[in-house]
Amino acid sequence: MNVIEFIDHHQQQYLEELKEFLRIPSVSTRNEYKPEIERAARWLAEKLRSAGMQGVEVIPTATHPLVYAQTKQVPGRMTILVYGHYDVQPAEPLELWTSPPFDPTVRDGNLYARGSADDKGQFHVHLKALEALHAAEGELPINVKVIIEGEEEIGSKNLWAFVADNRHRLKADALVLSDTSMLARGVPSITYGLRGLNYYQVEVTGPAQDLHSGVFGGAVPNPITILAEAISQLHEKNGRVAVPGFYEDVARLSRSERKAIEALPWKEKEFRRIVGAPDLCGEKGYSVLERIWCRPTLELNGIWGGYTGHGEKTVIPAKAWAKLSTRLVPNQDPARIARLVEGRVRQALPKTVHCKFDVLSTGQPWLADYSQPIFRKAIASLEKGFAKKAVFIREGGSTPLCRPDAFSFENPLCASRFWPPR
Amino acid sequence: MNVIEFIDHHQQQYLEELKEFLRIPSVSTRNEYKPEIERAARWLAEKLRSAGMQGVEVIPTATHPLVYAQTKQVPGRMTILVYGHYDVQPAEPLELWTSPPFDPTVRDGNLYARGSADDKGQFHVHLKALEALHAAEGELPINVKVIIEGEEEIGSKNLWAFVADNRHRLKADALVLSDTSMLARGVPSITYGLRGLNYYQVEVTGPAQDLHSGVFGGAVPNPITILAEAISQLHEKNGRVAVPGFYEDVARLSRSERKAIEALPWKEKEFRRIVGAPDLCGEKGYSVLERIWCRPTLELNGIWGGYTGHGEKTVIPAKAWAKLSTRLVPNQDPARIARLVEGRVRQALPKTVHCKFDVLSTGQPWLADYSQPIFRKAIASLEKGFAKKAVFIREGGSTPLCRPDAFSFENPLCASRFWPPR
Repeated sequence: MNVIEFIDHHQQQYLEELKEFLRIPSVSTRNEYKPEIERAARWLAEKLRSAGMQGVEVIPTATHPLVYAQTKQVPGRMTILVYGHYDVQPAEPLELWTSPPFDPTVRDGNLYARGSADDKGQFHVHLKALEALHAAEGELPINVKVIIEGEEEIGSKNLWAFVADNRHRLKADALVLSDTSMLARGVPSITYGLRGLNYYQVEVTGPAQDLHSGVFGGAVPNPITILAEAISQLHEKNGRVAVPGFYEDVARLSRSERKAIEALPWKEKEFRRIVGAPDLCGEKGYSVLERIWCRPTLELNGIWGGYTGHGEKTVIPAKAWAKLSTRLVPNQDPARIARLVEGRVRQALPKTVHCKFDVLSTGQPWLADYSQPIFRKAIASLEKGFAKKAVFIREGGSTPLCRPDAFSFENPLCASRFWPPR
Repeated sequence: MNVIEFIDHHQQQYLEELKEFLRIPSVSTRNEYKPEIERAARWLAEKLRSAGMQGVEVIPTATHPLVYAQTKQVPGRMTILVYGHYDVQPAEPLELWTSPPFDPTVRDGNLYARGSADDKGQFHVHLKALEALHAAEGELPINVKVIIEGEEEIGSKNLWAFVADNRHRLKADALVLSDTSMLARGVPSITYGLRGLNYYQVEVTGPAQDLHSGVFGGAVPNPITILAEAISQLHEKNGRVAVPGFYEDVARLSRSERKAIEALPWKEKEFRRIVGAPDLCGEKGYSVLERIWCRPTLELNGIWGGYTGHGEKTVIPAKAWAKLSTRLVPNQDPARIARLVEGRVRQALPKTVHCKFDVLSTGQPWLADYSQPIFRKAIASLEKGFAKKAVFIREGGSTPLCRPDAFSFENPLCASRFWPPR
């Protein structure tokens, strides 16, 4: 049985194992899921061992454990480091799920569950590829190292410390990271750029305690109104971010790259259908793909304050909160952008309130030159596997791991997504 | 034993009974408290019977029951209708309470519990006065009727229907309503004006479902940002409400009334201490008391959308919501103001989102001429009871019952608060 036959033969078993993985609610942002996070790490270690990997280790960190494994390392062969993360985002609001987030369900040939596309599903493909190659062919023609973390959704802080302390162990010619997407269903894609991410939380305090809006309304600072007024000052009418200095270091898009992006087989109509809003919007002067791939943004991710239950409560709350994030592009410096955003928010607030501004996490943007040989090899493999033309794309999402200065690779990171076409 | 001795003798028992009343979580805004609401109504009926009242009735309505009772009605005597409400506002956020909201606790000579000052505490004073007069003196020198509702905090809708259908039964020379406050601790006060209240809820929908801010951010309408931008357009820099036509029907304050308000024994410093914010704010050209008593306002009472838990979630939510209310003064028409506010909110929203705007309740402002004889009698009683000068005040809060056209009284409503001075 060759490797392809082996994979075909085990298709159903792979699906059941992936479902097992997806059933573990490994939500990294919430402390109450800590045991589940650890269960997911142990589950992975076990599966890596079954796949014939060596030196499998669950490595504790200050927060959630890392999982490491490697094939037999033969000198002189090319070495690939495969990255994945086994943590997922919170699944709330639960009422918007058609099937429960941690009860994987197949509908119309798609598998629905939290983490199925970010990043358990993708990593599981690598895992099963390693297992199949090991079982069918015994040895791989290259050296493979695998590192999987459990805090990608909260900023990968402990991964950095590990990477800094283990440069030799992690040394590789290229890194394969599949926590990315395809341009469209059935279009094999290699990502050469990701946006960075700073995530912030703002707390505005007016009165020392909740007040009755009848007894006090009209004379006291309302933190909801004031927070809303501050948020309204963060964008210009033309969709640009109204934070002075925000665009100062942004690298200009080359004419050739804009042309390449324009030529991609991407349909705005399909994007509009998925979004489902009455209309799109964004920064003037840029196409939709440029807006979500190549331009920095500031988005509100959460807001709350006062009474949010059913019916009425005539309260002026003491506090109101917002969560917001900035997506960053080369050559923006996340630390500098955090200072600028904090300064702009504070400047927008009157002296009638106090403000607490926290940077919850920061991550750098990443951009590679896809004319390099490693990218050529990767795209050739992809086109062979899919039997169709593959494309180079950027992405609007962020992967904290993609930090230009973190690895001492000979070649830069190679990000792609290997998911069977339909 | 005369009535005063009788009251002194039963002080401790009255306190225990009040605590019993306060322990019933009669939250009218939430369906799950329905059995508690009904328990509160039955508790009141029982106590009114013990107080020697006649014709005690728990009257079902489409929502929460009314409780009615009266003394023996003797023709030719003056008739007073006493109003109260036994429902309370939700107690959330629970973590801000020093002692549990439905576990009445005395601290430093004050009784803390949800409803202790709105309106169970006040009504309990009337109840015990009726009981003491009945026990000590047998018969009252006036006719008294009592009506207590269970949906004051949600707009008193069913009370209106009852009042309209029972004009004769409720006929009285004056109405005593103590769901009001005192100017300051130890200052006996009679309220001659209350603001009206319209309460609204806004739902803004952008995308058809929650989207990832990395994959979509920069090109799609963010309902949180857009809701905040709309809210920011509802006030001018000078604190005025920026809804065209909002002030059009507002009655001008007379010079004599402004002078009387200015002369009241009220300390801004104490108000500032209670509020505890870095500074006060409000409409330019008006004093703090004028702002909270005599001027209309628009306040945000709640806001929510996106991820509001611990940590991070990079979401662009499909929806964001706000609860807001306008306090109204003579001669604003609540129905007209609701139309104006809805129009202004819709105008502030771009075409990239849908908006659902609901008026949850409306209530008219009320203002009486306190030179009328009934007010003179009331203030003379108050001054006798407290043995000190009493004052006429307005209030910023709202009582849906105070609707100028609702009752066919010979004299207008007389609102006061009878709470022992300290």
